[in-house]
Amino acid sequence: MTPKVSIIMGSTSDLGVMEKAAKLFDEFEIPFEINALSAHRTPEEVELFAKGAKNRGIKVIIAGAGMAAHLPGVIAAMTPLPVIGVPINASLSGFDAMLAILQMPPGIPVATVAVNGALNAAILAVQMMATGDELLMNKLIAYKESLKTKIVKANQELSEVKYNFKTN
Amino acid sequence: MTPKVSIIMGSTSDLGVMEKAAKLFDEFEIPFEINALSAHRTPEEVELFAKGAKNRGIKVIIAGAGMAAHLPGVIAAMTPLPVIGVPINASLSGFDAMLAILQMPPGIPVATVAVNGALNAAILAVQMMATGDELLMNKLIAYKESLKTKIVKANQELSEVKYNFKTN
Amino acid sequence: MTPKVSIIMGSTSDLGVMEKAAKLFDEFEIPFEINALSAHRTPEEVELFAKGAKNRGIKVIIAGAGMAAHLPGVIAAMTPLPVIGVPINASLSGFDAMLAILQMPPGIPVATVAVNGALNAAILAVQMMATGDELLMNKLIAYKESLKTKIVKANQELSEVKYNFKTN
Amino acid sequence: MTPKVSIIMGSTSDLGVMEKAAKLFDEFEIPFEINALSAHRTPEEVELFAKGAKNRGIKVIIAGAGMAAHLPGVIAAMTPLPVIGVPINASLSGFDAMLAILQMPPGIPVATVAVNGALNAAILAVQMMATGDELLMNKLIAYKESLKTKIVKANQELSEVKYNFKTN
Amino acid sequence: MTPKVSIIMGSTSDLGVMEKAAKLFDEFEIPFEINALSAHRTPEEVELFAKGAKNRGIKVIIAGAGMAAHLPGVIAAMTPLPVIGVPINASLSGFDAMLAILQMPPGIPVATVAVNGALNAAILAVQMMATGDELLMNKLIAYKESLKTKIVKANQELSEVKYNFKTN
Amino acid sequence: MTPKVSIIMGSTSDLGVMEKAAKLFDEFEIPFEINALSAHRTPEEVELFAKGAKNRGIKVIIAGAGMAAHLPGVIAAMTPLPVIGVPINASLSGFDAMLAILQMPPGIPVATVAVNGALNAAILAVQMMATGDELLMNKLIAYKESLKTKIVKANQELSEVKYNFKTN
Amino acid sequence: MTPKVSIIMGSTSDLGVMEKAAKLFDEFEIPFEINALSAHRTPEEVELFAKGAKNRGIKVIIAGAGMAAHLPGVIAAMTPLPVIGVPINASLSGFDAMLAILQMPPGIPVATVAVNGALNAAILAVQMMATGDELLMNKLIAYKESLKTKIVKANQELSEVKYNFKTN
Amino acid sequence: MTPKVSIIMGSTSDLGVMEKAAKLFDEFEIPFEINALSAHRTPEEVELFAKGAKNRGIKVIIAGAGMAAHLPGVIAAMTPLPVIGVPINASLSGFDAMLAILQMPPGIPVATVAVNGALNAAILAVQMMATGDELLMNKLIAYKESLKTKIVKANQELSEVKYNFKTN
Repeated sequence: MTPKVSIIMGSTSDLGVMEKAAKLFDEFEIPFEINALSAHRTPEEVELFAKGAKNRGIKVIIAGAGMAAHLPGVIAAMTPLPVIGVPINASLSGFDAMLAILQMPPGIPVATVAVNGALNAAILAVQMMATGDELLMNKLIAYKESLKTKIVKANQELSEVKYNFKTN
Repeated sequence: MTPKVSIIMGSTSDLGVMEKAAKLFDEFEIPFEINALSAHRTPEEVELFAKGAKNRGIKVIIAGAGMAAHLPGVIAAMTPLPVIGVPINASLSGFDAMLAILQMPPGIPVATVAVNGALNAAILAVQMMATGDELLMNKLIAYKESLKTKIVKANQELSEVKYNFKTN
Repeated sequence: MTPKVSIIMGSTSDLGVMEKAAKLFDEFEIPFEINALSAHRTPEEVELFAKGAKNRGIKVIIAGAGMAAHLPGVIAAMTPLPVIGVPINASLSGFDAMLAILQMPPGIPVATVAVNGALNAAILAVQMMATGDELLMNKLIAYKESLKTKIVKANQELSEVKYNFKTN
Repeated sequence: MTPKVSIIMGSTSDLGVMEKAAKLFDEFEIPFEINALSAHRTPEEVELFAKGAKNRGIKVIIAGAGMAAHLPGVIAAMTPLPVIGVPINASLSGFDAMLAILQMPPGIPVATVAVNGALNAAILAVQMMATGDELLMNKLIAYKESLKTKIVKANQELSEVKYNFKTN
Repeated sequence: MTPKVSIIMGSTSDLGVMEKAAKLFDEFEIPFEINALSAHRTPEEVELFAKGAKNRGIKVIIAGAGMAAHLPGVIAAMTPLPVIGVPINASLSGFDAMLAILQMPPGIPVATVAVNGALNAAILAVQMMATGDELLMNKLIAYKESLKTKIVKANQELSEVKYNFKTN
Repeated sequence: MTPKVSIIMGSTSDLGVMEKAAKLFDEFEIPFEINALSAHRTPEEVELFAKGAKNRGIKVIIAGAGMAAHLPGVIAAMTPLPVIGVPINASLSGFDAMLAILQMPPGIPVATVAVNGALNAAILAVQMMATGDELLMNKLIAYKESLKTKIVKANQELSEVKYNFKTN
Repeated sequence: MTPKVSIIMGSTSDLGVMEKAAKLFDEFEIPFEINALSAHRTPEEVELFAKGAKNRGIKVIIAGAGMAAHLPGVIAAMTPLPVIGVPINASLSGFDAMLAILQMPPGIPVATVAVNGALNAAILAVQMMATGDELLMNKLIAYKESLKTKIVKANQELSEVKYNFKTN
Repeated sequence: MTPKVSIIMGSTSDLGVMEKAAKLFDEFEIPFEINALSAHRTPEEVELFAKGAKNRGIKVIIAGAGMAAHLPGVIAAMTPLPVIGVPINASLSGFDAMLAILQMPPGIPVATVAVNGALNAAILAVQMMATGDELLMNKLIAYKESLKTKIVKANQELSEVKYNFKTN
């Protein structure tokens, strides 16, 4: 199946973080591709990738990178597709990657999520595509409901835990 | 016309920043609405707004807020629509708003842009809607071309400026 | 017994920090309840909780949360009760939670304590209730005296330790 | 009338910030006192003040200070009353005062509010006293309602403003 | 004359900072070029520029940029020439540009100087070229001597100033 | 008279901050000298200064510097005299100078004071010399008393101010 | 023997850091005392300590504390003796303690050293006392020479290490 | 063979970081020397080293240091050679060393690389020397190609990994 989302990361060492996005797309049965391409070490490959993405049918790009994280911004500069940036904590608690992704100049936005927030990047990609896809929107609504159910159950377990305090 | 994008801000004092988003939608002829609603001072209005947005035909929400900027996250928690957050520099150089918007927990993303980056928020909203709208995509590509033209022209002016250095 | 204080946390993973508050209320024999409710994943439950707290007899709410920690502020927006916020170190050394709780806009305060400072949150709750309860005030004074006794004893042990330096 | 709240500041230069607290107490008709006492330059006066506050009928203390802001913590160490700390931006954007007030060690809490957040400090003081005073609680609820009214009105003005964008 | 150094900036608004570099090259009579090219708005022009620089005879590139400053790193990825990066203070006191330029991943260095440090960037470029050019090295040594002379003279003026203190 | 304290600054532009130290020494009638010497532009002069200071009768050195403020540490490395460092706010709110002065490695301390804290540097210098000079110690005690008197008087003026609130 | 230096720490858990100061005084054969007293939990003991120190023959006080580290400043407010502050890394990488000790307001300096820099605090104390004690000054000069010898020896070992690189 | 590059570090404990530079020079067969010299503990040795480097045939100096990292700047002040600074993470995540190296005042640049970025420092040194050495330039181009090959291969391995997601 033709992928609709492209997950790209600056280094294969970022896979541990970025695979959380891949898992969500599996859960939503959205075809995706996953690649490692460095803005600094393979600039031509990045260019080919970014310029060709729209014509290959990609709807949203998720790019994760650490340190002076240029990958999301460099891709955003070469495609009209929305680009979601995931700052990866590789140094300085991820502050460097956060600022290098978030603080894009006027004209070229990158939709930034939390440090190491690859799961949220994937949910955001689904939300973007769901703006024009009612079926996907319904799946998304069901997914958000399931998050509530989990935390409500966790709270019930907590209620039982708390009695331990009181009797101690 | 029914608005497709909703711009919301935590305080009317944020209008100076947020109107950059409004102007872009004017330029793209995308109907939008603009409101001030505080997550903290008018929580019920925010809830009504967030829960009703999708059914009123809104496709994307842009929310700007300063300080402990909860508005984007609170809205994101109550709608399946994508929410774009604009941290506004009201204190601490905007670091507080940046972290309070960006660092959303797993499950509820906010697509964060640069501090005071309302123009980029609007471009990002257009990109999101363009994933399912080829006409809008073409407008967007034309818009990005015009940005290049402007900077190329600025560079030519700079070329003339530089001769001043050399002869001095 | 009807709880007088409500401890609420954004995620059950915060229990390790928040139980320090619970233990202090046990020590003071103040009835309390403890729950996990997420501002982002269970907004309706949070609203029900916050709006009903005063009528159920709650006097003070302690809310702990990490990352873009909106829970304390969201609750404070929906209750006239004092809300104490505990920033939890879940990322960025807790700086994100600290700023997202502390920097509330004019009108809706959250009484913020140190990162992971759940014990202090509980002492502060006791101080608040003691402003109108002389018996509780006396318990509090006794508690503060006991803290002094502990550190004076620790200092005496240190006095013995120091002789080891001198003879080496 | 005997003051119920004591506003204290580290330097008379902090008056511009701290008078926002004074104005709220005027609005609520709560008797208060206001003093400048430095933890570093007048430690004996601070001690006399802190130790005597409870017996003089003070219920809550609000202490504002900048730089290495020790005043709130020093007072909190010498009284069982709740102490609210207001970090004042006198240097380093107020980060120094914020951390010096917020990060109190276990045993001696200071209820910290936003940088320069004296108004919120006063509202918090009212909330604390209202836990044992139903009349005051009702005033507080009315006050919070009035905040909503203001922002709703501001939003209506904004609605008219926005049409200016559309026609431009 | 063929330029040996290329000064490039992300926006013409950076000219006020970057012209300090131009002035030093004038002083050293080193032919240079100066251009505005945006990594994000004109990526193809940046690529053409970076890939062609070495063959046009350029020895060193100085690139200044603000916010999520990708320009120096993007150029460094496409040329074997040394690239000097100047973080420009356009937001967040320049911390964002500093980290986005400095924290380059292994393999692609950018020689970073202080925020707004365009003069030092130019001196550094001279130092690099002087490693293989004894005449230039001698000019550089003379230049550094002149800096000392200036500060020694300033100190003498200060000596006279100080007597004003003593007699007051 | 032979100077007993030496005030040194990295640049004559620091005089506005450093003269606060000079004024205190005038007040205490302690002979001092004041010079501008740059660790980076006049390293030999700094070395001559630092190595000769003790033999010329200097007891304490106060060194102020901004940015990558090496002057205090470089002097401390070349003299057994105590060196007091004053971080000067020349960029990044003075954070760079603060860390570059404070974080000295084991073996070579610099007694650091607040950003722009030249007055405190001078008081500290007096305290150091007073450890072996009872007369000076008595002057110092009188000086500290005068600080209290000033703030007590300021507080009385504040007491009168406050009535303005109450009647409004 | 009567102690000449007093080492004080906010909590016995700081002993691991502060004992580095104690060891240096042992090496210099300077009699010292070491105590744990909390500015917040034992304010009266701190007052007794600070006010009595000079009359008991103490010449310099070294105070270490973490978090909202008030101990050094509180002591400095109650004694004319020089106070050296050691920020202890107990949270937020020690940034909170650093700012809470360093940023003292005009009038009451604390001589601050690096985070966890207790050894440098002790050397600084020796330097202060040596301003009026030629014998101690000579010991200090010998100590600084020994530091050089150690690093020169380490460098020689490094020289041998480096040949391993070259032959690999 | 006479060394062309000199690697210097503030402490032998920095060897684990700095040896990455040494290994690159081995790979490029560029003769180098490696020494530990402290700006603070062995200032005379540093002076001898810095002033003699050019005449001994050194072309570039790489200096690594942690904390208040003065070594690179102090050397840069005493040589016309280009100096590359490597901030070493010894405290505060390396922020102190970063600012103490990067923020050099006008006149004395240090070419700063990422925290612990010794490999990039070495590549930068090669780039500097290659500006006047075509053979070295060709080696450098080949080296950069090899980096691309590595990441392309890593990406192919990733492609195989990704199918595991899809079938799960």
